[in-house]
Amino acid sequence: MKRALLSAVAAFGLATSASADTLVDNVQGVSIDRDGKVTRFTGIWIDDDGRVKALLERKDKRPQRTDFAVDGKGAYVIPGLVDSHLHVMGIGFGALTLDLSGTRTLAEAQAAIRDYAARNPDRRWIIGRGWNQETWGLGRFPTAAELDAVVADRPVLMERVDGHAHWANTQALAAAGITAATADPAGGRIERVGGSRAPSGVLVDNAMKLLDSAVPAPRPDDYDLALAKAQEILLANGVTAAADMGTTIEGWQSMRRAGDSGWLRMRIMAYAAGPDAMELIGGPGPSPWLYDDKLRLNGVKLYMDGALGSRGAWLKAPYADDPRNTGLPIVTGTQLRNVMSRAALDKFQVAVHAIGDRGNAEVLDVIEELGETYKGDRRWRIEHAQIVDPVDIARFGKTGTIASMQPVHQTSDRLMAEARLGPNRLSGAYAWRSIAAGGALLAFGTDAPVESSEPFAGLAAAISRTGPDGQPFGGWMPGETVSREAALAGYTVAGAYAGFGESRFGEIKPGLRADFLVIDRDPLLVSPEDMRKTQVLQTWVGGERVYMSGTQVDRPAGGR
Amino acid sequence: MKRALLSAVAAFGLATSASADTLVDNVQGVSIDRDGKVTRFTGIWIDDDGRVKALLERKDKRPQRTDFAVDGKGAYVIPGLVDSHLHVMGIGFGALTLDLSGTRTLAEAQAAIRDYAARNPDRRWIIGRGWNQETWGLGRFPTAAELDAVVADRPVLMERVDGHAHWANTQALAAAGITAATADPAGGRIERVGGSRAPSGVLVDNAMKLLDSAVPAPRPDDYDLALAKAQEILLANGVTAAADMGTTIEGWQSMRRAGDSGWLRMRIMAYAAGPDAMELIGGPGPSPWLYDDKLRLNGVKLYMDGALGSRGAWLKAPYADDPRNTGLPIVTGTQLRNVMSRAALDKFQVAVHAIGDRGNAEVLDVIEELGETYKGDRRWRIEHAQIVDPVDIARFGKTGTIASMQPVHQTSDRLMAEARLGPNRLSGAYAWRSIAAGGALLAFGTDAPVESSEPFAGLAAAISRTGPDGQPFGGWMPGETVSREAALAGYTVAGAYAGFGESRFGEIKPGLRADFLVIDRDPLLVSPEDMRKTQVLQTWVGGERVYMSGTQVDRPAGGR
Repeated sequence: MKRALLSAVAAFGLATSASADTLVDNVQGVSIDRDGKVTRFTGIWIDDDGRVKALLERKDKRPQRTDFAVDGKGAYVIPGLVDSHLHVMGIGFGALTLDLSGTRTLAEAQAAIRDYAARNPDRRWIIGRGWNQETWGLGRFPTAAELDAVVADRPVLMERVDGHAHWANTQALAAAGITAATADPAGGRIERVGGSRAPSGVLVDNAMKLLDSAVPAPRPDDYDLALAKAQEILLANGVTAAADMGTTIEGWQSMRRAGDSGWLRMRIMAYAAGPDAMELIGGPGPSPWLYDDKLRLNGVKLYMDGALGSRGAWLKAPYADDPRNTGLPIVTGTQLRNVMSRAALDKFQVAVHAIGDRGNAEVLDVIEELGETYKGDRRWRIEHAQIVDPVDIARFGKTGTIASMQPVHQTSDRLMAEARLGPNRLSGAYAWRSIAAGGALLAFGTDAPVESSEPFAGLAAAISRTGPDGQPFGGWMPGETVSREAALAGYTVAGAYAGFGESRFGEIKPGLRADFLVIDRDPLLVSPEDMRKTQVLQTWVGGERVYMSGTQVDRPAGGR
Repeated sequence: MKRALLSAVAAFGLATSASADTLVDNVQGVSIDRDGKVTRFTGIWIDDDGRVKALLERKDKRPQRTDFAVDGKGAYVIPGLVDSHLHVMGIGFGALTLDLSGTRTLAEAQAAIRDYAARNPDRRWIIGRGWNQETWGLGRFPTAAELDAVVADRPVLMERVDGHAHWANTQALAAAGITAATADPAGGRIERVGGSRAPSGVLVDNAMKLLDSAVPAPRPDDYDLALAKAQEILLANGVTAAADMGTTIEGWQSMRRAGDSGWLRMRIMAYAAGPDAMELIGGPGPSPWLYDDKLRLNGVKLYMDGALGSRGAWLKAPYADDPRNTGLPIVTGTQLRNVMSRAALDKFQVAVHAIGDRGNAEVLDVIEELGETYKGDRRWRIEHAQIVDPVDIARFGKTGTIASMQPVHQTSDRLMAEARLGPNRLSGAYAWRSIAAGGALLAFGTDAPVESSEPFAGLAAAISRTGPDGQPFGGWMPGETVSREAALAGYTVAGAYAGFGESRFGEIKPGLRADFLVIDRDPLLVSPEDMRKTQVLQTWVGGERVYMSGTQVDRPAGGR
C-alpha cells in the first residue's frame, strides 16, 4: 500500500516535465490579488522552473515553441487553493483507517475488514470505525471470534459509530492484556462471553482505554503513508498549499523525507506543535523555504483556550446554556506572553488558537503589548477567531493580526453557537465581513480533519452562510458573508500572505510558482449550491500537473 | 561570534566557483584505491559540478579554457581525508570552551576569561577548563569574587586541570542554588569563605555535580556554532569527510540547517545515537545522500562494552591489574541481536563499539548469525576493535566486517593496555595488519575529541606504532604497522567505502567529487616524524577550496 500510494502521488507528474516550457491554453482564467482585484486570462505560459512566465489574453500571440501544451477546452482556471488551517497528518491518518459506517450487515463488515487487511499487509494494527450492530440487525454485540475469522494474524480494533465502544479481535485483546481476570474499570465495561468471565471482544466506554493504550504509536512509515494519503486527498480537492497547524518532529521528518525523495507535491507551511517542537524543528529561527518553496517551518501554534462545543472556549460572560461556566484559558496570560515573546525574539511566526471572546481579547492584548517590542513584519495570527466581542473586532486590523478562519465551522456550529451564547452575543460570531472591514486579512481554511478538507464547501459557506442543506434560508447573519472575490482571495493569496509565501505562490502571475486549478465552473458566477459541487479537473503545483480528475480524459494537445 | 564563524567557514568558498570548470595544476598528486594501488598525476580538471573530470599527467594537454586555475607550485596533492570515527559536535563544543591550561597567573586567567566573555556576548554561560592554582603560585583556591571581577553578567564555570574541581562565579552559584545553607554532598566539598558557611566559589569532586546540572542544555544556535567550529577545525586538518558516531536529533537538525543554508562544507556520514534517534532521524531507513553528497544518515551506533581505561571493556579473562574483573557488556547479547536485527531489517548500517576481546567476539557472533538472515551489502562495522583474541581476527574478514580503528589510540594507550592485559594478551591488540591480512577493511579515524582530530598523527602512528615522542623506539609491536599506502587508503577510500560513499568520494578519480588536499610533503616518502608535521595548505571539497593555510599566500595563476 505504501508504494502504491507514493507512486500514485508521483505518477501524475510524469505527464508534464518541470524542466521545460509549458503552455496551458484555451481556459477561462482568473487570478485574484490581496485586494480582491481580478485578473483574467486565457493562457498560462510556464517557464522551465515551474513559474508563470506570462499570462496571455485571447488576443496575445502564443509562444512559438513550448515543450508541452495543454488545451483547457474552455474550462475555468483559478489559483491553487491555500488552506490556512488544517492538520496534514490527521487528514492522512484519518483517511487510512477503515470506515465501516456504510456496512449493512456483520458479514459486509467482515468482508470489508478482510479486504482492508489484505490491501494493507504492512500495517501492524488494523484500525477502523463506524460499526453499529443495530443497523446490522444483529441484536447483540459482535465478537472477537467474528473478527478472528477474517483477520487472525494482527490485532484489529474497530470503534463503534458513536465512539462509545471498541470491537477487538483476540490478538488485540492479548496485546492489551485483557483476560478473564481483568476487572471492569470504573466507568467502563468489558463484555463477557455468556456464562463466563472471558472477554467477548467488545469494550465499552472507559474500558476502551485499555485497548487504546496498547495501540502502538505510529512509526515513520506510518507517517509517510499518512503524508502521501493527505497529499492525494488535498490535491484532488484543489488544495495546493496548506498551513499545518501543530507540526510534530515526527511529522516534520516525514515531510523532509518527502522533500528529500521527491514525493512532496504540495506546499506545506508548518507551525510547530508548541515551543519545544518549534525549537527542535526550526532551531534558532524559521527554516528556509525548502524544496522549491514546498516546505517551510514558519513558526509555532499555541493555544489560548478550548472549543465551543465542550464549553472550553473562554468567554467574557458565562455560557448561555451553562450559567456558572465561562470556559477557561489553557495557559495564563503570563505564560502566553513568555512563549510568544520567546518565539518572536527568534522571528518565528506565532499562530494562537482562540475561540471565545475573552480568549480572543486576551490574545489581542498580548499582541498589542508585544507589538511595542517586536516591530516589523510579524504577521501575528489568531486561529479560528470564532467569537469576538464587537468592541475587539477593530483590534485585528489595528494590530495587523491575521484572522485565520474556517467558513465551514460557521455552518456546522451555528445551532450550537446559538445555544452556547444565546441570541444577544452573536454579532461577533464568525464575523468575517466585520473583521475584514476593520482592516484585517482573512485567511480561510477548513480545520480538516475536524471538518472535511473540501474547500469549495468553505467558499460556498463564505459567500452564503448557508449549509449544504441550504439552511438557514438566506444565510445565518447574512451581513457577515463576503464577496466571491474576497472569499477566493481568502482561500488563495491571503493564505499565502498569512504564511509569508506571497512572493512565491497564491496568485497566478508572472514570477510566482505556477499553482493553479482547472475546474468545471466559474466561481465568480455560480450559485453557492453549485459552488459546493465544483469539480477539480486538474491540479497544478509549480508548473507540474499533480492531479487529474479520473473522469476527464485529457489529451495533451501539442508539443515542440 | 556565530556570524564570524559561519562566515569564516563560508568565505574560503568565494575564491572558487562551484559552477565553472577548474584546473588545479602543477602538483605532485597521488590517489589510492581500496587495494592500495597508487595513481599519480600532476593536474586535476574539475567540472562545473565539482566532480573530477580528468586527471592529467605532465605530458597531457591542458584544457584550453577553464574558468579558474590554481598553480600548485609543485606541492603534493592527496585525497581528502576521511575520518571514520569522530564526534562532530563534541569537537565543536570542546573547541568553543575556554582553555586556561596555558595561564601562568590568576591575573592571566582572569584576563583570558574577560576577553573570552567579551568575544562571546551571546553565550549564556562562560565555560572553560584547565586552571591550576599550583602553577599560578597562588597557594589557595581562587574565589567567586575573582571571577565576578571579570564577568558579573553571566554564570562562569571553569573546571580544574585534573577535572576534580569547578571554579564558579556568583551567578553560577546562584543558578545552581548553592548557598551557605547547602550541605556538602557525599564525596564532595563546597569550599567556604574563611570563618563562614558562605560558598567561596570552588566545588570539589561530587559537589561539582551541583553545578553541572545547572548548566543549560545547548540550544540550537549553540549546536550551529559547534558545527561551524568543528568544520573549521576538521577542514583545516585536511578532513573532508567524517563518520559522526552518535548523532542526536539535535545534532542532525543542525547539520540539516547547515545544508539548507549553504554552510555545510564537509561530508558527514551520520550514525544515530541509538535506535530511537535512528528512527527519528532516518525514519523507515537511511536518508538519501543530501546536499551534493555532503550528508547522509547511514545507520546507528551501538555499544557492546565500555573502555579499557575504566576497565569497562569486556574481556575473555580478568584484567591483569584487577584479577576479579573481566569488564562487562553494556547490553545483553539478546538486546544487541534485537536492535541490530531491527536496524538491519530497515537497511540501516550498524556500527558497534567493541573494545575488549570478549566484546569483539560477541559482536562477531551476532554478525555471523544475522548474516544468515540479512544478506547483501551490509557492511557491518565494529568500532575500535581494540583488543581482539587472535582466534577471532579472521572472523572480521570472513563476515565482511569493517574494522573501524583509530591508530592514535594505540600510541596513547599502549602503557595502559600493557597494564590491563599483561604481556601475554597483546598479540591481538590494535592489530591492524593482522586484521587486514584476514581480509577485513581497515577504516581509520581519530575518535576526536577523545583524541586530537589531527589525522596526520594517525597516519604516522599507523606506519610506525610510535608516539609523538618517538617512543617506543622501533615501534610497539611493529609487526602490526601498515604500509604508507594502506594507511592512506584507510584514511581515504576505505573510510568512504565504510560509509557507503565510495562511488561519490574517497579517491581522486574521474566521476567522484573533487575532494583533495594540497600538502607540503609526500606522505609516501616522509619519515613518520615528518608525516606528523604535515602542513595542510589547501583543502578542497566538491571542487571548492574550503580552506587555505594562512601561512601560504596563494595567487591564482590564471583564468579564462
